[in-house]
Amino acid sequence: MTQNAGNQALAGQMQDCINDCLNCHNVCFDMATQALQKDANNVNYINTLQDCAEICLTSAHFMLRSSALYGYTCQACAKICTHCEEMCNQQGDTDCANACRACANSCQQMVKMLAI
Amino acid sequence: MTQNAGNQALAGQMQDCINDCLNCHNVCFDMATQALQKDANNVNYINTLQDCAEICLTSAHFMLRSSALYGYTCQACAKICTHCEEMCNQQGDTDCANACRACANSCQQMVKMLAI
Amino acid sequence: MTQNAGNQALAGQMQDCINDCLNCHNVCFDMATQALQKDANNVNYINTLQDCAEICLTSAHFMLRSSALYGYTCQACAKICTHCEEMCNQQGDTDCANACRACANSCQQMVKMLAI
Amino acid sequence: MTQNAGNQALAGQMQDCINDCLNCHNVCFDMATQALQKDANNVNYINTLQDCAEICLTSAHFMLRSSALYGYTCQACAKICTHCEEMCNQQGDTDCANACRACANSCQQMVKMLAI
Repeated sequence: MTQNAGNQALAGQMQDCINDCLNCHNVCFDMATQALQKDANNVNYINTLQDCAEICLTSAHFMLRSSALYGYTCQACAKICTHCEEMCNQQGDTDCANACRACANSCQQMVKMLAI
Repeated sequence: MTQNAGNQALAGQMQDCINDCLNCHNVCFDMATQALQKDANNVNYINTLQDCAEICLTSAHFMLRSSALYGYTCQACAKICTHCEEMCNQQGDTDCANACRACANSCQQMVKMLAI
Repeated sequence: MTQNAGNQALAGQMQDCINDCLNCHNVCFDMATQALQKDANNVNYINTLQDCAEICLTSAHFMLRSSALYGYTCQACAKICTHCEEMCNQQGDTDCANACRACANSCQQMVKMLAI
Repeated sequence: MTQNAGNQALAGQMQDCINDCLNCHNVCFDMATQALQKDANNVNYINTLQDCAEICLTSAHFMLRSSALYGYTCQACAKICTHCEEMCNQQGDTDCANACRACANSCQQMVKMLAI
């Protein structure tokens, strides 16, 4: 792969990852509000949704800034989204689980491309 | 070390880490504004300061939520603060470098305590 | 208008406003990065874009929390988006100006509905 | 008052306001976590604390950016802090109420100085 083709692939992949992060932020933030209203005693789930919403936004911001350091936030984001996905699945919140998995996959892909 | 003594040591260490993260957020955010006004062409430095301010705040929020997942953000925060500290030193911004180093050390300490 | 119909109209309007706020946040955040890289000496424009991105996100979060206090942030958001739209137009950044105007209008609409 | 003396008074007042906003953010964020763990069914209180923490941070960021638009966020912040103070007092959370009142006063002062 030429360097230009590689750069374009990275740029496309990054734009996808930004979109997945922003979507996951929105979905998890919304779900945290719903979880608080539905069963506020599920503190651990509410906290995890808020965690996930925040790291997704932070990761998106790093990529939107074209920062050289986004690998670190993408790595954290992939891990946290994976945890959140598991909890969403346990709660039967399928849409939220899907948003988390998509974001985790995108972030892992970004980390892999950095390592090449 | 008994478990109670260990828990208390972790709680004290976490409070220190929250304070170091919040302080580093404030100092880096302020420095980003100053850097933009002083030499706006130093885009990489401005971005790194904004990155560092944001991950410090995110890490503090994870710990303030007593989240089980703070290890991931502390790990990213330690790395990003270390990068930012180097750039601050190159620019002669000693106070900011000190805030970054203190935060990097605190975060690394939190990650180590999790691993035990 | 019955109260139920009124509540549904408010809910639909609020969802639109959340979407306009989130979109305006993303567009302004992206434009701030571009403005910094293109003409970093345009400090006032860069700051206004960052301001606008942040208050849009904050307003969206208030509405996503179903907070009773979103009127205050929507009011601030409408004003700040209007300022940002003017600056975007001066810079010829039409897409960003459009996002700001749409968000300003949505937020003003929310404030009006509260006053009824 | 000469313009220079006026500028210095504004700068000192703004630094105080930034500190009050950052402190109120930290205290309310922490209190939201405690309220969630203690009595998670108090949804309205938890939301208000999260609202207050967020607008305080946003206001501090506007002032830290030396933005020309901080009057709008300070105005919203003063109102929201006043609401939050009332709820903190009802809950007997005196420290949090104090942080909210100090921040509301500082923000109102900033708005007044702008109007001169």
